[in-house]
Amino acid sequence: MTVEGEKLYGRGTSAGKGPIVSWLWVIEAYGELGDELPVNVKLLVDGMKEVGSNGIDALVKEEAKDGNFLSNVDYFCISANSWLGRKTPCVTYGLRGLCHFSAEVSMGRKDLHSGHFGGTVHETMTDVAMLMGKLVGPNGKMLIPGIYDSVKAMTAEESSVYDAIDFDMAEYAEDLGIHSPDSLTYPGKKEALSARWREPCLSIHGIEGAFSDPGRKTVIPHAAVLKFSIRIVPGMEPSHVADSVSKYLTTAFCSFKSGNKLDVKMTQGCKAWLEDYNTDNFEAAKAASKLVHGVDADLTREGASVPITVSLAEATSKSICMLPIGACDDNAASADEKLNKSNYLNGIKTMGMYLQEVAKIGA
Amino acid sequence: MTVEGEKLYGRGTSAGKGPIVSWLWVIEAYGELGDELPVNVKLLVDGMKEVGSNGIDALVKEEAKDGNFLSNVDYFCISANSWLGRKTPCVTYGLRGLCHFSAEVSMGRKDLHSGHFGGTVHETMTDVAMLMGKLVGPNGKMLIPGIYDSVKAMTAEESSVYDAIDFDMAEYAEDLGIHSPDSLTYPGKKEALSARWREPCLSIHGIEGAFSDPGRKTVIPHAAVLKFSIRIVPGMEPSHVADSVSKYLTTAFCSFKSGNKLDVKMTQGCKAWLEDYNTDNFEAAKAASKLVHGVDADLTREGASVPITVSLAEATSKSICMLPIGACDDNAASADEKLNKSNYLNGIKTMGMYLQEVAKIGA
Repeated sequence: MTVEGEKLYGRGTSAGKGPIVSWLWVIEAYGELGDELPVNVKLLVDGMKEVGSNGIDALVKEEAKDGNFLSNVDYFCISANSWLGRKTPCVTYGLRGLCHFSAEVSMGRKDLHSGHFGGTVHETMTDVAMLMGKLVGPNGKMLIPGIYDSVKAMTAEESSVYDAIDFDMAEYAEDLGIHSPDSLTYPGKKEALSARWREPCLSIHGIEGAFSDPGRKTVIPHAAVLKFSIRIVPGMEPSHVADSVSKYLTTAFCSFKSGNKLDVKMTQGCKAWLEDYNTDNFEAAKAASKLVHGVDADLTREGASVPITVSLAEATSKSICMLPIGACDDNAASADEKLNKSNYLNGIKTMGMYLQEVAKIGA
Repeated sequence: MTVEGEKLYGRGTSAGKGPIVSWLWVIEAYGELGDELPVNVKLLVDGMKEVGSNGIDALVKEEAKDGNFLSNVDYFCISANSWLGRKTPCVTYGLRGLCHFSAEVSMGRKDLHSGHFGGTVHETMTDVAMLMGKLVGPNGKMLIPGIYDSVKAMTAEESSVYDAIDFDMAEYAEDLGIHSPDSLTYPGKKEALSARWREPCLSIHGIEGAFSDPGRKTVIPHAAVLKFSIRIVPGMEPSHVADSVSKYLTTAFCSFKSGNKLDVKMTQGCKAWLEDYNTDNFEAAKAASKLVHGVDADLTREGASVPITVSLAEATSKSICMLPIGACDDNAASADEKLNKSNYLNGIKTMGMYLQEVAKIGA
C-alpha cells in the first residue's frame, strides 16, 4: 500500500482488504478498551471472490445447518460494495445477478488464410458477427425474445427512494471517463439508476480465438468463442435465461445455414439479490451511519453481483444488509485502486456503531 | 530447415526462400556447366512481403524509368504463389486484391465494469456488434450497397479454362482441415474456384481492445477496433471500395444513436491483378512446365494478393507470369511450412527450361 496525501493506494484497499481490516480494528478497539463486544461477532472472509469463490456456496450451505458456524447468526452485514457517490454514505439492499455465456463457432482444425480460402468456406467470424447482431440493438436493447418479461415495474415506494438519492450525473459522467455525455444511455438520475440497478442488460466482452493484437492479419480463425454476459434482476432465473439465450442463438444459427458448429454455454449463473430494507438490521446500519457521518445514508442497490449474498440469503433466510465504506471513485478492483483515509476511519467507526445499534434490537 | 523423408520443413521453404534459392541454382548450374545463360536475367528479391514490402512500389516505379534497372526487361516471371493442387503444375495469370479496414469505436478513457455501469452507457462492443451484423449475411454475402457492381461475369473462354483444371473438392476439404464438408460454401469445383479467384469476399479477422483470453471477464472496453478485409477482383478500385465501406458504416453507426465515436480507415489497399495469358511469356512458362512434368500446366488464378505484381504491371506494362513451384498443402507462410523435395528439384528444372523457352521467343 502507498499513502499519497489523504488517499491509501493499493489493490484491495477499497474492494476487500480495507473493509476486512476495518472489522478487525473494531474488534481490536473493544479489546484495547477492555470492553466486551456488544454482540457476538462471527467473521466470514472470502479471499477468492475475483476467481469465482470456489466452494463458498457449499460451505455456507453446510455451515447454516443446525449447530454449525452460521446456524445461530441473527443478522448479516456485508462490506463488499461501494458508495453510490463520493460524499454520502449508503446502505445497500439489492444486487443484480449475472449470467455469463460463451458461444463457440468451430469450423475446423486450422486457421486459414483469407486470400487463399476466403469465399469458399463459411467463416467462423461471419457466423459470430451474425450472432452478435442478433443479441443487442440500439440503446443496448436486448433482442432475445421474452428476456424482459420478468422485470418488475417500479413501485411508488421504490420511486420515492430514488428521488431522495444524492447522485450527480455530471460527476458520474466524469467518473466514467467518457469522451461525451452522449455516451450515456439516460441523462436523468432516476432513469440512469434504474438502468444500473433494476434493469437487465447485455455486455459483449470479446472474442477468444480471433486476431486481437494491433496491426493487420488476414486470418480466418478455425474457431472463435464469443463471450457475453447478461446482468439479471429479481424475477429472472439464471436457468431460464440460459434456456432462452441458447434456444434463440441456436435457432438463429440454423437460419445462417453455415455448416459450422455452434456450442452455447452459460459459464456462470448467479441470481439477483433483493432485500427488504424495512427491518431492524437496516435500521441499525442507517443509525450507525448517521451517527458517524451526520447525514442520512442513501438506500442503494448495485448493478454488480456479489454471489455470497445470494448464498447467505438462500441458506439462512436471515436479514442481510450491505454496509459499504469506500467511495464510488475508488476504482474498486481495478487499476489505481484507492481508499480515502476519511472513508477508512469513518468506515471503522460506522462498523463499531453498527454493532452497538444491533445490540439494541429488541432491547 | 529440417529434412523429413521427402519433405523440407522450415518457414519460407515454400513461400519465398525456396523459390528464390531455386533461381540461384539455375544460374549456378549454367556457371558450373560453363554455359552462357540463354537470356539476360535480373533478380528482384523482396524480403519484406510479410510486413508490407515497404518501399517496393516506389523502387519499382523508379527503376522502371528509362535507363534504370528494370527499363529493358522484356518478360517478368514471379515465383510467389503455390500450385492449386498437389500434383499438377500451374502457371498463374490473376490475383485478387485486398482492402484492409479498421473501424474503431471509442467511448472514453477507461474500461468499465459491466456490473457497476452496464445499462447506463452505450457500450463500444454493442456498437461493434451492430456494425459487424451490417457487414455480412448468410453464405458470406456482403451487405455493403453496390459492392458487387463491378464484378465481371464469367466469359465462355474463362469457363472452359475452369473446366480443364485438375481440382479435387474432397482433397480441398481435407487440406482446409474443416470438420464437415458443410462448411464449404460451394460443393462444386467451378463455383468454389470462382468464389476463390474472381469474386470478392469479406473476412472479419477480430477485435483489438476487447477481452480475448480464455476464461471470463466482465469488462466494457473503452475502445474497440474491428479489423476486417475485403478481397477485391478486377474492376474494383480500392479507393472506391474504401468510400463505399466508410459511408455505409458511418450511416449505419449514426442510426444507432450511440453517442460514441466511430473512425473507419482503410489500412491497406491493393488492386487485383489479371494478365492476358495468350502471350509468348505464358507459352514459355507452359512449355517449360510440360517439358519437366510431362503434363500440361493448369492455368490458375489466386485468391490472395501479391502487391509487387500490381506494381510491376503498372510501372512496366510488360507481360508478367507467375510460375509457382510449391504444392497447395505446403502450409505456405504458416505453421509447419514445407516444400516437397520433388517440387524443389522439378521447380529448379522448370525455371531453367523457362529461360531457354524465353530465349526462343521471336527466334
